[in-house]
Amino acid sequence: MKNISIDLNADLGESFGAWKMGADEQMLEIVTSANVACGFHAGDPLVMNRTVQLCINNAVRIGAHPGFDDLSGFGRRRILNPDSEHLSASMIYQIGALAAIAASCGAQVSHVKFHGALANMASEERELAHCLVSAVKAYDPQLAIVAMAATELQSQTEKIGLPLLREVYADRAYNDDGTLVSRGQPGAVIHDPVMASDRVLQMIETQCVESINGVKVKVVPDTVCVHGDSDGAVLMARELRRCLEANGVQVAAYTTR
Amino acid sequence: MKNISIDLNADLGESFGAWKMGADEQMLEIVTSANVACGFHAGDPLVMNRTVQLCINNAVRIGAHPGFDDLSGFGRRRILNPDSEHLSASMIYQIGALAAIAASCGAQVSHVKFHGALANMASEERELAHCLVSAVKAYDPQLAIVAMAATELQSQTEKIGLPLLREVYADRAYNDDGTLVSRGQPGAVIHDPVMASDRVLQMIETQCVESINGVKVKVVPDTVCVHGDSDGAVLMARELRRCLEANGVQVAAYTTR
Amino acid sequence: MKNISIDLNADLGESFGAWKMGADEQMLEIVTSANVACGFHAGDPLVMNRTVQLCINNAVRIGAHPGFDDLSGFGRRRILNPDSEHLSASMIYQIGALAAIAASCGAQVSHVKFHGALANMASEERELAHCLVSAVKAYDPQLAIVAMAATELQSQTEKIGLPLLREVYADRAYNDDGTLVSRGQPGAVIHDPVMASDRVLQMIETQCVESINGVKVKVVPDTVCVHGDSDGAVLMARELRRCLEANGVQVAAYTTR
Amino acid sequence: MKNISIDLNADLGESFGAWKMGADEQMLEIVTSANVACGFHAGDPLVMNRTVQLCINNAVRIGAHPGFDDLSGFGRRRILNPDSEHLSASMIYQIGALAAIAASCGAQVSHVKFHGALANMASEERELAHCLVSAVKAYDPQLAIVAMAATELQSQTEKIGLPLLREVYADRAYNDDGTLVSRGQPGAVIHDPVMASDRVLQMIETQCVESINGVKVKVVPDTVCVHGDSDGAVLMARELRRCLEANGVQVAAYTTR
Repeated sequence: MKNISIDLNADLGESFGAWKMGADEQMLEIVTSANVACGFHAGDPLVMNRTVQLCINNAVRIGAHPGFDDLSGFGRRRILNPDSEHLSASMIYQIGALAAIAASCGAQVSHVKFHGALANMASEERELAHCLVSAVKAYDPQLAIVAMAATELQSQTEKIGLPLLREVYADRAYNDDGTLVSRGQPGAVIHDPVMASDRVLQMIETQCVESINGVKVKVVPDTVCVHGDSDGAVLMARELRRCLEANGVQVAAYTTR
Repeated sequence: MKNISIDLNADLGESFGAWKMGADEQMLEIVTSANVACGFHAGDPLVMNRTVQLCINNAVRIGAHPGFDDLSGFGRRRILNPDSEHLSASMIYQIGALAAIAASCGAQVSHVKFHGALANMASEERELAHCLVSAVKAYDPQLAIVAMAATELQSQTEKIGLPLLREVYADRAYNDDGTLVSRGQPGAVIHDPVMASDRVLQMIETQCVESINGVKVKVVPDTVCVHGDSDGAVLMARELRRCLEANGVQVAAYTTR
Repeated sequence: MKNISIDLNADLGESFGAWKMGADEQMLEIVTSANVACGFHAGDPLVMNRTVQLCINNAVRIGAHPGFDDLSGFGRRRILNPDSEHLSASMIYQIGALAAIAASCGAQVSHVKFHGALANMASEERELAHCLVSAVKAYDPQLAIVAMAATELQSQTEKIGLPLLREVYADRAYNDDGTLVSRGQPGAVIHDPVMASDRVLQMIETQCVESINGVKVKVVPDTVCVHGDSDGAVLMARELRRCLEANGVQVAAYTTR
Repeated sequence: MKNISIDLNADLGESFGAWKMGADEQMLEIVTSANVACGFHAGDPLVMNRTVQLCINNAVRIGAHPGFDDLSGFGRRRILNPDSEHLSASMIYQIGALAAIAASCGAQVSHVKFHGALANMASEERELAHCLVSAVKAYDPQLAIVAMAATELQSQTEKIGLPLLREVYADRAYNDDGTLVSRGQPGAVIHDPVMASDRVLQMIETQCVESINGVKVKVVPDTVCVHGDSDGAVLMARELRRCLEANGVQVAAYTTR
């Protein structure tokens, strides 16, 4: 596996005011790109500033992680029929706010990963995905979009022509069509760090993953999503990085600009 | 009064969600620069987007109007002892959000005018004024700061070296030291459009204004603050512009970049 | 039409902070019961206090008008899959907040009308309607629920056994099944105050309304919803009250306790 | 120390949405009364509902813990010149929201303890303290007010005639006038659970506490404030309760109604 490189990303900067969330310091020593909450579902200007500085200190690539304007629901509730001009402006607002904080620290935002219910809706709804990607393009066409395989978000990113970062999950089972098995289903989540790491290694090596039904599904991983919201999650992320490097995979940020 | 030019500014984009505020469409035909609320004390992404587009259509210069994170108080309540890193990041967040929306429309933000209680505190408190101006500089040192004469904000803007737009009021009486007479005081507010316009004309012509005590006070007006929150306010703004132009003063946006 | 009495209700107290909405003073001289926003989609403690005092001064019955926790969307956006314990607690929180303000003024809350997207969802979704009505009952089983005919909300109110106020609309066309014609459809909204008033008179007299297809549909009106968000709306409400009284219908608050 | 009884209170229910705060389950096995956040600076309807149920399960008295409408600042920032009608309505809103949730669970609110910056201001400012206590009285004159000795809040509670719960701190040094030594000062905070417990025992036994200058200061403790925001805090609370009971002091909720 010479010359193979993979990006590890995590959702960070999700504290808010007096409330702490996530093991950001530890995670920023493991991952190579961070999806930073932008104040609408989590995060606030101070948290964003500190997260950006931690990213810079750890040479981690900075991405925006915009979501619905739903602090009390942590952006996890689907809000129907968003007005497209409003949604578009909301995305640009959030990304721009983070970009300004990054600029004031001498850094820049390189990618966008949508959060929670908004991301789920963007996977399924063409018009919504189109609105989101178009908004990003209107602001900065060099920003990469993080998208799962087999989603409307991936299609629209390709169609509209923004850099695409194809994302895989270390700890989730896949359906035959390349989508994730829903969390409620038995076997949906993989808890064993070694098994999860082996799966990612296999994805990188073979560009395939075995679905929950035993079918070989094609995946092209640019970036692996890891979690940092519990001690177990941090351990898994650390084991994944160790395993990848031990097997000759370079863990490094994607390069789009 | 050949070759004399003055800028007219107003606080705009102060609607929020379903709530409308201000005669923005009419005001944007009168003023030459707009201070656009950035979502913390008023405004929201959709309102900001529409306000920016109206500014572009009317060739009005776009400024950011950041305030305290106090929607229920409209940014008019003094919040004590703000943490300086937090305050700084809050300013950059708000300005950056507007800058991104402007960028997505092909425009840019050119100045910053602080709002309400934050502006009042920045007039009086050196450390706070220093924090605010430094934050703007860290983000973009080409942004101009709108400041009243004889304030800490003006001093810090000059000291830190950002472009300064010296602001005067058409409808307010002045103290002998160049500060405004408090609204509570008798004679503090000038209601007659003709009298207000004559005062501004005199300020431009003589670089002086007569204080409430009859003392001549030096003022150097770069921009005149006008209001657009009532029919009377719109009429006064319109009369001011008419009067200035009738007397040979060019009403045009400031030029700093 | 001897001894016939009808209640007129309107959504009021929808201002927020510095933002004004609605002709509350005028409307409170026309209606007999008010649905007061409770701070989640509109209203704030000060607005609630003033609205309650206006209700008392006009002898208008006070009702709670709880909605989704969505100030930026004015409670008009459907938020999916609300957790039932959360939703229930949200309703009790809002009603209780208003009840306390009313109590401090020597008044009480007598009914509950759900707002916006929440009301629309409660019309269609049995489980949601059950959750809402059960929450009201857990707090105070004497509170009446305002519900449209042929809705899940009406069914659940009857099943759970809370006082029911059957609501009709003066300015909306009806489908054959007693539901409202969607606003998008031609003929959905009746703009002529006289025609609207005649329809309500007919509903009261005959307990029937002619549907958009000319079918006679049974309606039992306890309360008529009127609007106060524009000059035209206030005029229609005033004409409705005048017409009812001129035809011997007593306009008076419902009596459930 | 026969027949002596003391109340232990803690600020609880300070989680918000996805963010957890405080060891509420453990603390509710130690304390006898809880100050429950009401959604303005912390807490939300779901958190309030769960906290109330935990209080009921542990036979802990329920109090309201209202604060400034400042979620991002956790109610710790002083907001100047609050309009008294607004402030009064805000208090009644918060207390009433909690009272309704308690009522829906078959319980009731028995006391009010103001939070953070609002509590600090109420200690110092007569007019503000008067406004707060009057608001509580207007809603329910049987609610007890928790107040520190030598504060405007205590004076106003006595003057207005509401039940008063005099509060002492286990882990804080006192000035000669009965006020707390500011946190910044050396020796202001007592970290040793045994020493803190001994001090409380002495306060109960002698109605005196030794000030930081060695002066005996009179204190009449009705309730002791304990913290639950860290493992150390929980340990101190547990040791305090153990020590009190070992010395024959009954740890039990206050009785005012």
